[in-house]
Amino acid sequence: MTSPRARTPGAADLPIRDDLRGRDPYGAPQIDVPVRLNTNENPHPPSPRLVRALADAVERAAGSLNRYPDRDAVELRKDLADYLGHGVTADQVWAANGSNEIIQQILQVFGGPGRTALGFEPSYSMHPTIARVSGTEWINADRDADFGIDPQGAIGAIHRHRPDVIFLTSPNNPTGTALPLAVVQEILAVAPGMVVVDEAYAEFRRQGTPSALSLLPGNPRLIVTRTMSKAFAMAGTRLGYLAADPAVLEALLLVRLPYHLSTVTQVVARTAIAHREELLAAVGAIREERDALVGWLRGEGFAVADSDANFVLFGRFGDRGRVWRGLLDKGVLVREVGPPEWLRVTVGLPEEMAVFRTALAEVMGAEVMGETACERDETA
Amino acid sequence: MTSPRARTPGAADLPIRDDLRGRDPYGAPQIDVPVRLNTNENPHPPSPRLVRALADAVERAAGSLNRYPDRDAVELRKDLADYLGHGVTADQVWAANGSNEIIQQILQVFGGPGRTALGFEPSYSMHPTIARVSGTEWINADRDADFGIDPQGAIGAIHRHRPDVIFLTSPNNPTGTALPLAVVQEILAVAPGMVVVDEAYAEFRRQGTPSALSLLPGNPRLIVTRTMSKAFAMAGTRLGYLAADPAVLEALLLVRLPYHLSTVTQVVARTAIAHREELLAAVGAIREERDALVGWLRGEGFAVADSDANFVLFGRFGDRGRVWRGLLDKGVLVREVGPPEWLRVTVGLPEEMAVFRTALAEVMGAEVMGETACERDETA
Repeated sequence: MTSPRARTPGAADLPIRDDLRGRDPYGAPQIDVPVRLNTNENPHPPSPRLVRALADAVERAAGSLNRYPDRDAVELRKDLADYLGHGVTADQVWAANGSNEIIQQILQVFGGPGRTALGFEPSYSMHPTIARVSGTEWINADRDADFGIDPQGAIGAIHRHRPDVIFLTSPNNPTGTALPLAVVQEILAVAPGMVVVDEAYAEFRRQGTPSALSLLPGNPRLIVTRTMSKAFAMAGTRLGYLAADPAVLEALLLVRLPYHLSTVTQVVARTAIAHREELLAAVGAIREERDALVGWLRGEGFAVADSDANFVLFGRFGDRGRVWRGLLDKGVLVREVGPPEWLRVTVGLPEEMAVFRTALAEVMGAEVMGETACERDETA
Repeated sequence: MTSPRARTPGAADLPIRDDLRGRDPYGAPQIDVPVRLNTNENPHPPSPRLVRALADAVERAAGSLNRYPDRDAVELRKDLADYLGHGVTADQVWAANGSNEIIQQILQVFGGPGRTALGFEPSYSMHPTIARVSGTEWINADRDADFGIDPQGAIGAIHRHRPDVIFLTSPNNPTGTALPLAVVQEILAVAPGMVVVDEAYAEFRRQGTPSALSLLPGNPRLIVTRTMSKAFAMAGTRLGYLAADPAVLEALLLVRLPYHLSTVTQVVARTAIAHREELLAAVGAIREERDALVGWLRGEGFAVADSDANFVLFGRFGDRGRVWRGLLDKGVLVREVGPPEWLRVTVGLPEEMAVFRTALAEVMGAEVMGETACERDETA
């Protein structure tokens, strides 16, 4: 037993905000294993050609690092607008250190004390987490059994709660579910405040699933967020961005930290965009690998949520923690996230997915032998 | 005249937080002029050797940019701790995208709705700005006529307001005033919450002015913030950091955005620290140039605040805006900031300061000839 006097002081001994007391920091375990399929990273590293181009770009910029960056990242925003298409212009694009900072800025200016944000869970857990930190009350509206959003239920929830900010996701994390544009439009029609469509995984959608970018004209309260972490394979660069009416950008300037985006981040992101043909070529391969994974899992009798993303939610497990641990013991790290009977696996390289399939089959075989057999169904 | 219907919508047309309505975004004008002495940048660019090392470091890291960064930036924090000395260890150091993000994280966890932060103005205007965005009420306690902090007055204000966070600055921006450790200790003794000593300009202090780092042992509610923007000449890198009790870091984890610090930022900062001998060598030259500037300004009859930083506050002007504009017309950009009769000039290269001195003499000559003569005194 440790005496109270000898105990190392922790956050609880400091005058932190009462509503943060007892909370755990967000973050998936960063464990060094052979096959990391837990944070929806893109498994394709930058090519030697791109690595060289990134180093050259930094070399050109480094000579002026004693100066502050362009506070408004104008050239980067032009490049991002050009990439997005849909008629989006630089004065409709804003960038920050990851889409988390984009979400934080949105909640700082449109949410805050006395205001509410509504999302449809299970969904990206940073939405409620950042809402809480910004003092915005979080309201959960449940998804359907198939992880979609029922428009009538959504409209009812919006009328009931009058949220200042609504978070939609397409595709949704951790379920992979895309959202029909018709649902976004119905929600836009009744939303009393801002509507954010988080499209972090947009580039992985199956054919025929359109982006909410096409809804921007005439909808000054619509914000579409994106990231370079996934399709662009630039998670280490931390570059999130949004497209919206220029008035939204004017509002964000009231809360953004000045010089929030470093000179180096700006040139690295611009270089990656210049090499987008190479980077986005891998997206097709990931989509094929994902569809094959979904097919295999279903063939094995697992329940699998339809996925338009670079990950797959599968189940259902009586004790998913045992399966997670079993996979980890075999060097495969997946994510224990979302509804309690499911696990999320990121789509990695073909050889990584082969290891995953073998490991999962072995773990499930052991499970069936053991006392807690997993419940499997194909209905979800 | 523009008709109301034709007006472009702006932030005011959106449902932004009421307390942000009508506010202007923070930020000095980014004007491209020959002599930029307005944002306290270090005028010495990285050497070709350092530029090369930065590019090499990025090249080594770029091959894994498809992966998220080390969320806790462990190696960087070790390097920063080693640089700080004073027995500071990596578990006492935290880093973020500029000290602005450090300040934001501090206010998010120790401030927030229903809480207060107190500072001694004139001071760094981002303290109250970030406080407001975080929902923390800002309380100003005035400085003395010589821009110092009177301990008895400070203690009185602390007893009156019971602030959750107190911001001290040493040296203070925009006045350049250092704070005796005895004053920090007296304030620590009565502070009911956290005490932040912002030491962004610490390395420029004159001999014999100690750092509050020496007060960390036994003071778990003390936070000392630093930046690589100034002495390290890395404003474009955006790397701010703090030293505090490990319990403070545990608290900050509750509000920091996961993966807030990019892989590239981490390696660029580490490379700069590895080259600190070269970078910090310029600090001595800047201090000498500053002391010469103070001497010259006083010789010309200006009031000048004692400066331990890389900038000088001088005055006093009946209409500082005219002087600011006059200097700008001659290609010299200084900062219209702080008390209304004063201007702030960053210490640049010797040749830049020569241009500044000539321009100021000419502007003042024209002013004396004009109708609004400037008021000069040597008392402040």
